[in-house]
Amino acid sequence: MPINPNAQIEITGFKWVPDFARGLVRDLRVRWALEEAGLDYRVRLLDQQRPADYLKEQPFDQVPCFNDGTVQIFESGAIVQYIGEKAEALLPRDPQGKYRAIQWTYAALNSVEPGVQHRVLLDAFYADQEWAKLRKPGADEFARNKLRRVSDWLGDKQWLEGDRFTIGDLVMITVLRMAKIGGLIEIGSNLEAYVERGEARPALQRALTSQFAEYDAHRPEGVAA
Amino acid sequence: MPINPNAQIEITGFKWVPDFARGLVRDLRVRWALEEAGLDYRVRLLDQQRPADYLKEQPFDQVPCFNDGTVQIFESGAIVQYIGEKAEALLPRDPQGKYRAIQWTYAALNSVEPGVQHRVLLDAFYADQEWAKLRKPGADEFARNKLRRVSDWLGDKQWLEGDRFTIGDLVMITVLRMAKIGGLIEIGSNLEAYVERGEARPALQRALTSQFAEYDAHRPEGVAA
Repeated sequence: MPINPNAQIEITGFKWVPDFARGLVRDLRVRWALEEAGLDYRVRLLDQQRPADYLKEQPFDQVPCFNDGTVQIFESGAIVQYIGEKAEALLPRDPQGKYRAIQWTYAALNSVEPGVQHRVLLDAFYADQEWAKLRKPGADEFARNKLRRVSDWLGDKQWLEGDRFTIGDLVMITVLRMAKIGGLIEIGSNLEAYVERGEARPALQRALTSQFAEYDAHRPEGVAA
Repeated sequence: MPINPNAQIEITGFKWVPDFARGLVRDLRVRWALEEAGLDYRVRLLDQQRPADYLKEQPFDQVPCFNDGTVQIFESGAIVQYIGEKAEALLPRDPQGKYRAIQWTYAALNSVEPGVQHRVLLDAFYADQEWAKLRKPGADEFARNKLRRVSDWLGDKQWLEGDRFTIGDLVMITVLRMAKIGGLIEIGSNLEAYVERGEARPALQRALTSQFAEYDAHRPEGVAA
């Protein structure tokens, strides 16, 4: 596992999150990309209450940040792309292959995630609120429509652009994992199989193992495992 | 103006949109970037009802697509970044400068736009629906919180990373223009001044002029100007 306390690359993550957020916090994308690339990294763990000057690193008070001594950046999509530039296995070098992958990274984060997240949060955060009950059918239809577009595009391809896994798949699959947890991925569908292909990658398994090990080590007293 | 029917670069746009969408359709970002870069382009105009095989170019049935003979891609963020790679004036060449700009492009599209768009659409599309009335205060707070984060970061800087305009500003300002139209930008605030600095750029003015000229030329009969 490339977690290494002396690594040049530092990312930020949370010490602990409630169980419903396990596997969804966005540093997972960066850990997964680093594991695919075989790059060592260390994690600076933050409390849910971040220090005030963390905003100088991350103006939205989120995780992850990334610092390798050359660049200091935030936004998981940008960080995954930067890692892709260091690892041809994640990001093709020819202009068309490279920008098709980058295009899917943006598509995952701007054309798919907002609708999926809105729908999933209705249940996770607002289930007892009247507006959420009234909104749920429309939000469900909106999210499923976006997912259907991805499903139609994917067809029987292995990955979004064919036989080759890229950062576009990596980010899209993290978005689809949220959709799956929210019950929006149909059993037996090509999207389910696509997510399972992603989840079968050893690099994602190592990323999940390292993230969960930190949460388990920092579980607050009195919170059941 | 770099609109040129014989240009190598082709983008897609709509023939016409209702007035509330003028200046917000996403091909504007790409036109603006091309104008900043001084690159000629032509526009393939689409009806609101796109041909079925357009999904092979754009799986979400949106505009814009981009094709310069080298890459064929969609997603305005990815396209603007690709144009940035051709124009150092839009995207610095040093790794930190480059990825700070790319980071802000992702931040605009994933950390700011979803909340702003959700809030603005409550008025634009759902104003008469009960859930939208109930949701509006919470959606307003969420969107304003994201905008406050951008405002705090910007402070008295000219652009997000200081003195130099980049693709990150270009995309962020298109998102903030939507927030402004939705009444979410405070008069006299640093965000208002930042949007005005963007709107004062001749390249954005040329992009708006060319987009509006096409809409005006295709205004349906019976729809008032």
